[in-house]
Amino acid sequence: MGKRRFSKKVGLPPGKLVYTGDKRGKSEISLIDYDAEKYEEINIKDIEDTLSFKDSPTVTWINITGLHNIDTFEKLKTCYNIHPLVLEDILNVNQRPKIEYFENYIFIVLKMIRYDHKIQSVESNQISIISGEHFIFTILEEKSNIFDPIKERIQNAKGIIRKNKVDYLLYALIDIIVDHYFVVLEEMGEAIETLEDKVVFNPSPDTVHLIHRLKRNLIELRRSIWPLREILNALSRGDSSLIHRKTLMYFKDVYDHAVQVIETIEEFRDTVSGILDIYLSSVSNRMNEIMKILTIMATIFIPLTFIAGIYGMNFKYMPELNWRFGYSLVLIVMVIIAVGMIVYFRKKRWL
Amino acid sequence: MGKRRFSKKVGLPPGKLVYTGDKRGKSEISLIDYDAEKYEEINIKDIEDTLSFKDSPTVTWINITGLHNIDTFEKLKTCYNIHPLVLEDILNVNQRPKIEYFENYIFIVLKMIRYDHKIQSVESNQISIISGEHFIFTILEEKSNIFDPIKERIQNAKGIIRKNKVDYLLYALIDIIVDHYFVVLEEMGEAIETLEDKVVFNPSPDTVHLIHRLKRNLIELRRSIWPLREILNALSRGDSSLIHRKTLMYFKDVYDHAVQVIETIEEFRDTVSGILDIYLSSVSNRMNEIMKILTIMATIFIPLTFIAGIYGMNFKYMPELNWRFGYSLVLIVMVIIAVGMIVYFRKKRWL
Amino acid sequence: MGKRRFSKKVGLPPGKLVYTGDKRGKSEISLIDYDAEKYEEINIKDIEDTLSFKDSPTVTWINITGLHNIDTFEKLKTCYNIHPLVLEDILNVNQRPKIEYFENYIFIVLKMIRYDHKIQSVESNQISIISGEHFIFTILEEKSNIFDPIKERIQNAKGIIRKNKVDYLLYALIDIIVDHYFVVLEEMGEAIETLEDKVVFNPSPDTVHLIHRLKRNLIELRRSIWPLREILNALSRGDSSLIHRKTLMYFKDVYDHAVQVIETIEEFRDTVSGILDIYLSSVSNRMNEIMKILTIMATIFIPLTFIAGIYGMNFKYMPELNWRFGYSLVLIVMVIIAVGMIVYFRKKRWL
Amino acid sequence: MGKRRFSKKVGLPPGKLVYTGDKRGKSEISLIDYDAEKYEEINIKDIEDTLSFKDSPTVTWINITGLHNIDTFEKLKTCYNIHPLVLEDILNVNQRPKIEYFENYIFIVLKMIRYDHKIQSVESNQISIISGEHFIFTILEEKSNIFDPIKERIQNAKGIIRKNKVDYLLYALIDIIVDHYFVVLEEMGEAIETLEDKVVFNPSPDTVHLIHRLKRNLIELRRSIWPLREILNALSRGDSSLIHRKTLMYFKDVYDHAVQVIETIEEFRDTVSGILDIYLSSVSNRMNEIMKILTIMATIFIPLTFIAGIYGMNFKYMPELNWRFGYSLVLIVMVIIAVGMIVYFRKKRWL
Amino acid sequence: MGKRRFSKKVGLPPGKLVYTGDKRGKSEISLIDYDAEKYEEINIKDIEDTLSFKDSPTVTWINITGLHNIDTFEKLKTCYNIHPLVLEDILNVNQRPKIEYFENYIFIVLKMIRYDHKIQSVESNQISIISGEHFIFTILEEKSNIFDPIKERIQNAKGIIRKNKVDYLLYALIDIIVDHYFVVLEEMGEAIETLEDKVVFNPSPDTVHLIHRLKRNLIELRRSIWPLREILNALSRGDSSLIHRKTLMYFKDVYDHAVQVIETIEEFRDTVSGILDIYLSSVSNRMNEIMKILTIMATIFIPLTFIAGIYGMNFKYMPELNWRFGYSLVLIVMVIIAVGMIVYFRKKRWL
Repeated sequence: MGKRRFSKKVGLPPGKLVYTGDKRGKSEISLIDYDAEKYEEINIKDIEDTLSFKDSPTVTWINITGLHNIDTFEKLKTCYNIHPLVLEDILNVNQRPKIEYFENYIFIVLKMIRYDHKIQSVESNQISIISGEHFIFTILEEKSNIFDPIKERIQNAKGIIRKNKVDYLLYALIDIIVDHYFVVLEEMGEAIETLEDKVVFNPSPDTVHLIHRLKRNLIELRRSIWPLREILNALSRGDSSLIHRKTLMYFKDVYDHAVQVIETIEEFRDTVSGILDIYLSSVSNRMNEIMKILTIMATIFIPLTFIAGIYGMNFKYMPELNWRFGYSLVLIVMVIIAVGMIVYFRKKRWL
Repeated sequence: MGKRRFSKKVGLPPGKLVYTGDKRGKSEISLIDYDAEKYEEINIKDIEDTLSFKDSPTVTWINITGLHNIDTFEKLKTCYNIHPLVLEDILNVNQRPKIEYFENYIFIVLKMIRYDHKIQSVESNQISIISGEHFIFTILEEKSNIFDPIKERIQNAKGIIRKNKVDYLLYALIDIIVDHYFVVLEEMGEAIETLEDKVVFNPSPDTVHLIHRLKRNLIELRRSIWPLREILNALSRGDSSLIHRKTLMYFKDVYDHAVQVIETIEEFRDTVSGILDIYLSSVSNRMNEIMKILTIMATIFIPLTFIAGIYGMNFKYMPELNWRFGYSLVLIVMVIIAVGMIVYFRKKRWL
Repeated sequence: MGKRRFSKKVGLPPGKLVYTGDKRGKSEISLIDYDAEKYEEINIKDIEDTLSFKDSPTVTWINITGLHNIDTFEKLKTCYNIHPLVLEDILNVNQRPKIEYFENYIFIVLKMIRYDHKIQSVESNQISIISGEHFIFTILEEKSNIFDPIKERIQNAKGIIRKNKVDYLLYALIDIIVDHYFVVLEEMGEAIETLEDKVVFNPSPDTVHLIHRLKRNLIELRRSIWPLREILNALSRGDSSLIHRKTLMYFKDVYDHAVQVIETIEEFRDTVSGILDIYLSSVSNRMNEIMKILTIMATIFIPLTFIAGIYGMNFKYMPELNWRFGYSLVLIVMVIIAVGMIVYFRKKRWL
Repeated sequence: MGKRRFSKKVGLPPGKLVYTGDKRGKSEISLIDYDAEKYEEINIKDIEDTLSFKDSPTVTWINITGLHNIDTFEKLKTCYNIHPLVLEDILNVNQRPKIEYFENYIFIVLKMIRYDHKIQSVESNQISIISGEHFIFTILEEKSNIFDPIKERIQNAKGIIRKNKVDYLLYALIDIIVDHYFVVLEEMGEAIETLEDKVVFNPSPDTVHLIHRLKRNLIELRRSIWPLREILNALSRGDSSLIHRKTLMYFKDVYDHAVQVIETIEEFRDTVSGILDIYLSSVSNRMNEIMKILTIMATIFIPLTFIAGIYGMNFKYMPELNWRFGYSLVLIVMVIIAVGMIVYFRKKRWL
Repeated sequence: MGKRRFSKKVGLPPGKLVYTGDKRGKSEISLIDYDAEKYEEINIKDIEDTLSFKDSPTVTWINITGLHNIDTFEKLKTCYNIHPLVLEDILNVNQRPKIEYFENYIFIVLKMIRYDHKIQSVESNQISIISGEHFIFTILEEKSNIFDPIKERIQNAKGIIRKNKVDYLLYALIDIIVDHYFVVLEEMGEAIETLEDKVVFNPSPDTVHLIHRLKRNLIELRRSIWPLREILNALSRGDSSLIHRKTLMYFKDVYDHAVQVIETIEEFRDTVSGILDIYLSSVSNRMNEIMKILTIMATIFIPLTFIAGIYGMNFKYMPELNWRFGYSLVLIVMVIIAVGMIVYFRKKRWL
């Protein structure tokens, strides 16, 4: 979970750009420029190539994939006048989700969540968004197709996205990230249900590890999503003049979704705790079961063996040994004792 | 609990109407129009048929059952100018209870709760309410007779309902929904008491599952009802001009009921936790009981069997074997040992 | 705990007076009228008979016992202009303690607590108070002598009560109710101490039930008293013009007492949780004790019995059997083994 | 912990002076009067004798020891115009620490804490302070030398105390009370460390009782000190004109100490909970140890004893019995089984 | 953890300078003076030597190492007019982190954290900072190279530090302290992962002690860092005129880091609790394993031994003993019983 990466930066001056992650795919920049009438998509080599779109009244969406090309971010500073600390935050992938208002733009850090089935673990990817008046930057740690549906909506002028400004695009981007949380929750919900069945029908010692892993995943998830609530609350309150009044309603809607995500996580945590209780109690019941069998066997046979031992003694004068029906009598006594024990255990509801 | 339904909508543009539930009964629209003097009830085919009542000063209550007829909701948008996100929320039955103020109407989402005895589980149904100045919409996921007493009160002009406006009807609707929570709480209270008796008199391994299920139901319940507090608080504060000053008192009253419901849920959760403690301790006591019996049997007979073993040895020179009363002596010694053990266990209060 | 009574009212119009309790003793109305100079006590048949005192500048205290005489409360509405919801709250004995300000009176609901030794359970009785400018109503579910000391103080002009107005009487009434909480706490404190001793010196399986019952009582108590804090805080802040400035100090004093009551309840809950820990650990220790005895017995005798078994075999060629001191030697070996085992257990501090 | 004393006062009129404690030593009044130049110490018989100092500009510190002399407190009412509820609070030694502002004085209740080694328990003594413009009263339940260092500082004009007014003396008094909390914390810290060592090296069943007692002491302590935070916060905010601006800094400093005390208590509670965990786990490990020994012994000897039993049978035709090396062979088989078992347990890391 | 040192100061007048720690290395004072153009570093003998820099517009950073030279701090009072309580706080190394605003300077107490691998424990060192308009004092308990990277940045004019004022230096100092928290967190994270592996693959009784120690370290850590949040929040709000507006952004950034540290600590605490659960459940599973082996062995051999015992009896008339194939038959019966038992355990999934 990336704890190793904390100390890469100790003692460096602030604003010094260092990428703290370890994902190094191809670095790409793409640009989409649109308004109600026109649509254009360009692959960009250098940030400087986007400057012509910067102040045009159309919506310009620039998507940067990959954080290891420091040069790109240096140019963001010079071309778009982005604060050095913002750029530092973009490159530090251990960032907590947050929002920061600047004079000409809003800076937002979010976490994109993916559930990796193979290792049954939650993977998070940092997405930074810089939203200006006519442009929006989305900066992804690695290539992802999460924004494809939005691209397609813009391309095909589906819904009202083409009729709106940058703030509506910002909403659409956050909305699709939050929608993906529901996908992850669904998958975790299934994992929890599987675990629940397993605990009831087939508990095994590694159940505790599964529970522990689920719990850690939920904590991780909660940590990634909790601050989002405050971010969306801030956006829907209309603190920034970059968000138009009629878009606030949409941010309020995503805020409601985020609250629902957090509540579901809390519910999952309660459920997982409950599963641990069930498991522990099933272990305890199993122990009881084992002890019962041992006790039944021992309690029935110990007295019988003792009686056999008595008549196995070699004393010269043991009158019973010479009785004609001594052996039969002893066998009968033994059967009576055994039956008595069984009746006793029946009464105790052990059998 | 409907977790599967989360992801039906990922990537769709907001305001796109998709019903996320799976209940598909007959879809119906009924309209009740009344004031202090007159009362009228009509079955409606199309939302457009209600437009003549829209601005009349009488109270118009339109009840829509079934959410799968998307067409109906499209017409709400065009005829009543309802915000697309509101309609989206109506159709998304995983909605969290909430209140939203618009210029001409208040939008409220609530959960109707029913306790299903067969599967010992809480079932929730979403009810959306759009309350305008002269009209009120109630939108139910599936047919229910929950509002029948109100209908009857209006019909028969019982109480003061006919003398009041839309805000009082809104109050009456919420009040009856909250009243039903008490019915569910009562039934859960009985389930808890049954469980409590079972744990004391007849505990069994599946008790933990029952406790777990009750806990989940209580969490589910809490999640449905908790936001209601804030909704009713908002309504009773008089934030909206659609609520008259003298009706505030009534909303304050329902608010008190909602608080009572939440407190009862919390109390139930505490009680259920206590039952788990009792169960675990009874399992532990049972184990003790089993161990005691095993130990008593083993401790009494192990030394006796050993003595019998001694005199079962085949040494040539074992003087005791030839004693006249050797056998009797050994038997007496055995009885003394057994009695001694029993006295010891008595002193230890094991017998 | 009265959960059964919740649903008596579902679907009734608000303000409809229905008594939700089940206590049906004699219904009585008594009236005390006093100022610094004069004192008068009258038994009343009908609320209408009190109207002559309503606006007189003397303090008029009307005590109503019994809630099943609906007629009395109908007349409160007509004669004293009490809000229908207030009357509904008076009759609904599952009410949460609360305060409500009206133009001409303050309405307060409180819980009178009594510890019933026979069933070791806390019993609560609802007391409603309507405090106007010159009159005060106290409405009790059933006959109680809780207010007798105040009556006596008024009668004998003890303290400053006769020199003060209705607000001071209101204070005196709440003060004595809160004082009774301390009596209940004292009795519960003794019950807890008894339980604590029992757990240490004589634990038994039903201890968990006692703990569970105590916990439920404490939760019940907390629920009855918690809202009182807010009520008294509101009263001592001087929100209402019906409370004179110099009386605020007195309400502040009762507020301090209420806080002390709540803190004591919290402390009791912690203590009871601690007792559960002690009990569980004592059960666990007892199990250890039992296992130790079993293990010591088995470990000493199992090898000895085995040796006896060896020489009980019937092989033809077993030279030891024919040795002169074979038997003695075996006995000596057995004693050595037994002593060795005992020394080992001593070293392990098991003996 | 004095719960018995709660109900001494039920039904008494407020302001009626009743001492609720049971400490009855000699009752004493002493007076110290000083300013930068002069210092005077007098033993007083009657509160009236202090009246000459009341309005002099010097600082007059009157210390009253013992609460059972009701007469003294009656005179405080008449001579210093102290509110009856204040006097009631002084005599009620179950008072929660609190601060109250009056026109001419501040009233503060605090708890003096002492750790009694003999009964390993925290003892608290109530200290009430009435701080006027030129005089300060300290009222102690029983004789104590806690204020001696302050007396000595005044006498010898150490530090800046003689150059300051009543508010600085008030600070000095509270500061020394809080300093004593650290002494108690230190002693409890040592008790916790002793317990921690005991749990690791020599756990015994009464450890749980010690933990329980420590926990109760910490709860008691927390209850006495928690409200102090609010008191000191209020004093350092400068709400009262009786505290000069430059003294606020000093109260802020004691406030910091109080916060540190509370944090240490919380830390101790966490530590004590951790010790309980260690103890329970050590009990559980011990059980495991016992079970292992039993299982090893039983598992090795049960099959051997069975084999001996086989050849102890008296069948006529048992060819092995007549073999020349039958006995030796059986012994060898037994050794092999025993060694096999031991190897198995080694592999399982039980030996 | 230094609890012993609490009471060193009871009864002393406030402002009396007493060093409460026990670290006594060499005491040193060094001074760095710089602005955009010039840089100077001097070793100082006496605080008085720094007075010439006090009001110069350059940034003067004075670092004092060692707290036992009381004389130095007395001179801070006289030369820099520092409040006596501030000096007292500097010398009291049990101080809680805090910030205090004075007219001419800000006083900040922080904790420097170091993870000591040898004793697997967190060590904290107090750092006090006095930040005036043109000078800054850093006061360390003992020699440390924590500030070396900053010194080097100033010396080599790296980053923007030389172009900024005292407030930026203050930010840089706090930033590097917080950066070191991440280093400690990383090391604790590794310790936790090691422990986690150990619990899964090789649990041992002292695991609980390790968990307990980790928990205490985390509590200690939390206590040192928690107040930092408030300090940084206060600094980034711009409460003091000593912090320039454009530096606020930087303090906001450190604030974010502090929040991240606290969240990581909380996450670690959850993880450590989870490890305890795993350990306890593994102990419980191990017990189950042991009991199973015992039960299997006992349950198979007890009936067999009983049968052998039967035919070891010495009755005269036992027909089976004389059967030709009696012995073989009995052996066959025994094998059948044993196999039956094994099949039964297989079915129960014990084997």
